[in-house]
Amino acid sequence: MTLHTEILEQPECLARLLEDGRVEAERIAAAIRSRAPRFVFLAARGTSDNAGRYANYLWGAQNGLPLALATPSLFTYYCQPPQLKDALVVGVSQSGKSPDIVSVIEEGRRQGCLTLSITNAPASPLAQASDLVLDIRAGEEKAVAATKTYTTELMAIAMISAALRGDKTLWRDLGRAPRWVEAVLKLDGQIGQLAERYRYMNLCVVLGRGFNYATAFEWALKLKELTYIIAEPYSSADFQHGPIAMVEGGFPVMAVAPQGKVFDSMLGMLGRLRKEHNAELVVISDAPEALSLAQSPIRLPAGIPEWLTPLVAIVAGQLFAYHLTRAKGYDTEKPRSIGKITETH
Amino acid sequence: MTLHTEILEQPECLARLLEDGRVEAERIAAAIRSRAPRFVFLAARGTSDNAGRYANYLWGAQNGLPLALATPSLFTYYCQPPQLKDALVVGVSQSGKSPDIVSVIEEGRRQGCLTLSITNAPASPLAQASDLVLDIRAGEEKAVAATKTYTTELMAIAMISAALRGDKTLWRDLGRAPRWVEAVLKLDGQIGQLAERYRYMNLCVVLGRGFNYATAFEWALKLKELTYIIAEPYSSADFQHGPIAMVEGGFPVMAVAPQGKVFDSMLGMLGRLRKEHNAELVVISDAPEALSLAQSPIRLPAGIPEWLTPLVAIVAGQLFAYHLTRAKGYDTEKPRSIGKITETH
Repeated sequence: MTLHTEILEQPECLARLLEDGRVEAERIAAAIRSRAPRFVFLAARGTSDNAGRYANYLWGAQNGLPLALATPSLFTYYCQPPQLKDALVVGVSQSGKSPDIVSVIEEGRRQGCLTLSITNAPASPLAQASDLVLDIRAGEEKAVAATKTYTTELMAIAMISAALRGDKTLWRDLGRAPRWVEAVLKLDGQIGQLAERYRYMNLCVVLGRGFNYATAFEWALKLKELTYIIAEPYSSADFQHGPIAMVEGGFPVMAVAPQGKVFDSMLGMLGRLRKEHNAELVVISDAPEALSLAQSPIRLPAGIPEWLTPLVAIVAGQLFAYHLTRAKGYDTEKPRSIGKITETH
Repeated sequence: MTLHTEILEQPECLARLLEDGRVEAERIAAAIRSRAPRFVFLAARGTSDNAGRYANYLWGAQNGLPLALATPSLFTYYCQPPQLKDALVVGVSQSGKSPDIVSVIEEGRRQGCLTLSITNAPASPLAQASDLVLDIRAGEEKAVAATKTYTTELMAIAMISAALRGDKTLWRDLGRAPRWVEAVLKLDGQIGQLAERYRYMNLCVVLGRGFNYATAFEWALKLKELTYIIAEPYSSADFQHGPIAMVEGGFPVMAVAPQGKVFDSMLGMLGRLRKEHNAELVVISDAPEALSLAQSPIRLPAGIPEWLTPLVAIVAGQLFAYHLTRAKGYDTEKPRSIGKITETH
């Protein structure tokens, strides 16, 4: 199974990027510092857009950079790109071939912005159009559902953040990420067993907040692409304003709730879902209080700093989506209706 | 029924804001022009966040302003607000009382930014914290589900856009919006009849693109708040990269597809959904080709310029959500689990 193999390759891919890409990341950070952009304008689609959500929180919290997620249709349909003066324009795409993402980078160059691409294809049109390129070095991704290119995109974003801060502690934490991912991969059999329980689930919501808002979106996307269930991602804050009304007894809620600054808010939501709404909870966490609320707890290794939990937690979500796909009798290698390269215009 | 009454009040509310708020909008535009912000940093929650999505496209396409949607948890949990130099900081909130939205405006002031609030409560903490206020003048909104404050927030955003452009044609178009909304309200009985068909629907997706990406989110939110169904909003571009795999025969897809620059792309998607996936389509449009693909067509008045279609199309979505709530036997006035004021911290 190519998908499973690629999920298992992730510690190696992350270690390789960290080792071989650090000089590039430092050079990119130096170029960014020298231009002192007022904000980041980031274009991506699908899985890479979820990596962009991580950048939105991480570069905001750790580097003080406000981030606007580009709306590519402004460029391709409305032909009205915004004024990008003093922006750092970033494209994230594993293939580097999405025409709409390339067009955002090209417009950035036309307006004289510093441009950066994060891609698995350093010879792609996207990379060629950019001033700066961080090659995520994930090796060819054959499975249609992206896994190792997602976690290496997150690593690339985290490396640029660490390089911008020039903080050795951050680099030391990054160096431990491959081993945390390895620890999650050891849960493969256990996650395979607990996925059985969801054989007949046809819809769910996926909750995350802060840095793990991205994880909720990416976990939901894997579930949608592979298992064809309706999986709707939410920040726990938005969820409690209205959508929580949907939750009745037995309603399945997936949650990403590692320890950190938003943990208490997530824990309160999980308690309410379990005790007041009688929801069914699948919880990825390193905190016993959160895990004990879940019918299906998935325990993360202890000690991951909050900013790096998205790189580790999503791996549990990938394994869950993979095993649920098999439990439902679907093909993990040939999901319906999607191709590998996003060709949106 | 307060909700129904407030839906019906919208032409009057829009006309009042247009008449009484124009001077304020012009003054706000003058202040913005004089500061020449590099980008907009906008904070909102729930329905107002959907109004922010409209601003994202409209101010981008019509005014060249890149827009970053704030992630309030960066302010309230991570205590790491980004550097907002040269930003226009905007808060949108009907009550003006959401502490996390107020905190974004306060941070903007602390950093010396120009700040603007769009609110139904000009004496609220949000308004008091802002340099500039556009009062949406919708009158007290008693129903828990927001309707007239949404369309007046869109109108406020559109008026600021027109004022920034200083273009009489845009103001003339705005003046026609109340009558277009009136025309949609005449479909009340017809929408009530077609909603019956969805009495047992428990999930659906809602598609929109470009300016109407916001409409898809807001229609989905009304369905979730009032009818407790799972209603997932998508841009048609994101939908075709993966999630379309969920669609099997009879799967209900709501679509907002008025004529304009993204229409061909929406029409292609609707044709594929009907012909290849055998989907069930509820389509809000002014285009016969799109309406004829739908089992449940909802016809918009002809001649609405694309940028104003969100103000008109959502009214059909509100009526649909209202009537479906009644068809399902739920209380339109007391939805479960939500209160009127968003008190997220």
